[in-house]
Amino acid sequence: MLIVQKYGGTSVADLEKIRKVAQRVARYKDQGHDLVVVVSAMAGETDRLLSLAYEITPEPAPRELDMLVATGEQVTSALLSITLQAQGYPAEALLGYQIPIYTDELFTRARIQEIPTERLRKGLSQGKIIVVAGFQGITPEGDITTLGRGGSDTTAVALAAALRADLCEIFTDVEGVYTADPRIVSQACKIPRLSYEEMLELASAGAKVLDIRAVELAMVYKVPVHVRSTFSEAPGTIITEEDEEMEKVLVSGVTYNRNEARISLYGVPDQPGVAAKIFGPIAERGILVDMIIQTGRPDGKADLTFTVPRTTLREALKLVEEVAQKIGAERVESSEAISKVSIVGAGMRTHAGVASKMFETLARHGVNIMMISTSEIKVSCVIDEKYTELAVRALHEAFGLDQPPQEEK
Amino acid sequence: MLIVQKYGGTSVADLEKIRKVAQRVARYKDQGHDLVVVVSAMAGETDRLLSLAYEITPEPAPRELDMLVATGEQVTSALLSITLQAQGYPAEALLGYQIPIYTDELFTRARIQEIPTERLRKGLSQGKIIVVAGFQGITPEGDITTLGRGGSDTTAVALAAALRADLCEIFTDVEGVYTADPRIVSQACKIPRLSYEEMLELASAGAKVLDIRAVELAMVYKVPVHVRSTFSEAPGTIITEEDEEMEKVLVSGVTYNRNEARISLYGVPDQPGVAAKIFGPIAERGILVDMIIQTGRPDGKADLTFTVPRTTLREALKLVEEVAQKIGAERVESSEAISKVSIVGAGMRTHAGVASKMFETLARHGVNIMMISTSEIKVSCVIDEKYTELAVRALHEAFGLDQPPQEEK
Repeated sequence: MLIVQKYGGTSVADLEKIRKVAQRVARYKDQGHDLVVVVSAMAGETDRLLSLAYEITPEPAPRELDMLVATGEQVTSALLSITLQAQGYPAEALLGYQIPIYTDELFTRARIQEIPTERLRKGLSQGKIIVVAGFQGITPEGDITTLGRGGSDTTAVALAAALRADLCEIFTDVEGVYTADPRIVSQACKIPRLSYEEMLELASAGAKVLDIRAVELAMVYKVPVHVRSTFSEAPGTIITEEDEEMEKVLVSGVTYNRNEARISLYGVPDQPGVAAKIFGPIAERGILVDMIIQTGRPDGKADLTFTVPRTTLREALKLVEEVAQKIGAERVESSEAISKVSIVGAGMRTHAGVASKMFETLARHGVNIMMISTSEIKVSCVIDEKYTELAVRALHEAFGLDQPPQEEK
Repeated sequence: MLIVQKYGGTSVADLEKIRKVAQRVARYKDQGHDLVVVVSAMAGETDRLLSLAYEITPEPAPRELDMLVATGEQVTSALLSITLQAQGYPAEALLGYQIPIYTDELFTRARIQEIPTERLRKGLSQGKIIVVAGFQGITPEGDITTLGRGGSDTTAVALAAALRADLCEIFTDVEGVYTADPRIVSQACKIPRLSYEEMLELASAGAKVLDIRAVELAMVYKVPVHVRSTFSEAPGTIITEEDEEMEKVLVSGVTYNRNEARISLYGVPDQPGVAAKIFGPIAERGILVDMIIQTGRPDGKADLTFTVPRTTLREALKLVEEVAQKIGAERVESSEAISKVSIVGAGMRTHAGVASKMFETLARHGVNIMMISTSEIKVSCVIDEKYTELAVRALHEAFGLDQPPQEEK
């Protein structure tokens, strides 16, 4: 089999952990598999590098910021390759520019555009274990880009897709995807299988175990993904296409996201194209708008509220304030004290009443709902941040997740 | 003027020092100069990275070792560029592969082959300060190489040569080139001007202030080099072509090199091509042989003694022992407890008796001479390591260097 593996920062946090990763990789190689291994920066290194840059200035040049933080993965890939070779396994470390992993020019949150596979295939055909520095790519002009937080997951799935690998294994510091965050819900259970759609909704709703762009790529290219622990041999969560055998649970998991912020524009004049004027500049900067609510007013104007990732609030707010002045909106407000709780499950497609049960549960616990959004297999509610844990625990219990799910045969 | 500047590791040791470097660079820019700034890794970083690799294995894979240590300069170049941009100066950090600085494939001690200047000139024509990660290059196949210790000096002079820069300034933690190591000879004085030839001999004889390959490049391409301190405004040592006005001092400086080791082959059969058999494999590995002495013996065999850098003794010895067995030499011996003291001066060309005065001075102080080598403007003696300081001080005094040289007008 051709397997792409990804090891996160805590899995390669020091030389001893890197040695253990090398041993695991070697075991796969001994079993006859072809291997591409994607590594993150050693735990803490990316933050250390970022803090150097932000100590210089609150707004470091994005091109140079990417050049700076990309060194983290470069170091790990070199160290893992040196370790494998010292153990007698032919290995070759490759950086984003060497493969090359082409991206667009959105520094600090670039998107992968194309991955030629000649260099990778050449190394594999020579029997080498290819060790890839995750999180990084290169623009057509040759500048280093990074893919944003969680970017190494995306690197791994994108490589698996480009190489048509048989499996993509994401090794991390948890044993898989859980019905809820075990730090909040002690009865949370590992979910043995999930469909891409469910994982996508869980990831977009705040489950941090797997980056959302990685899930999207896996879904589009039908890459089977196995999320599992570096520190144990236990099977984790397998993410594949939905099939007949997959148990259609009503709700697979409850998740939450604190990286939310709200921006409200009051008194927006009712003109054609006003929404494009507001959301155009935000989209151009690559900022993701999640929920949008527009409310008509008796005076013909409208109030508009939407959410963005909290980390981008400052940037988004600046853009919105400029637009508000141009279009003559009355005022702009924002809040960071919100969070989003969500329930996700493929079974929702065929069962009515899931959303109303969620609203009823939250109401019973005194949690006010500010915004709602739904998809075929997800319901999300924006609530006051202080109720986050309460809401997650209440929903986990209300949907019967406090029992361990049945393992499939 | 187009000026290439190089700042060493102690000059960029922390963010505060990098800020000061940025201020100095900005001052040059304000004066209307075009600037290419080459930086080393922050002091201690290269050693930290190397020790990680050597903690894994005593013989890390050279390709990955270069990929690892090249991150040091990548970090500094990004941080300096961020600092300059934060101060309002357009800047662009460029890595070895981006320029590109093409080298051969001798990992860990690669030699620069070619530097296309299009990318550099493009940035300069846009008014940007170009910040270059020193010490690193790229093979035609796209692998990262490093140029060995002192490689950032070579990067700076090679860039100055490729760009036909007006001046190459080497900023370091000393004020210039001295008549002797001030840590050993307290009366040592800064030398205001030196010819390339003198600097070359000083560097090859152990003066560490400027890398020898950098001096060679400067001489070939006639790049004026100014070695000076990052931490003061005082003029340093200017290295240029020898001219009429340059004072022809008999001896410009006394220097020493402890990075020496001796290998002796006894009973080498007198066959055609035996020297090639011994020195061929050593040269192929890029190990520099300094002095060679061959002594005939009554039995028709020969004894051969030569010196190599102490850091390469282990590797050289392995190669020599293999050859010794093949050609049937009697035995191989080696010693690390030697050092080389040298006197250098352009005035030697026209003055006889300098060498004999050196031998006489050493003899008077009881220092036994093991090997001698001379050039037009240098005399070197290999001696027992323990006499190093004594020999340097004695020679410094004997050749009248204890007086400060006259500054030129």
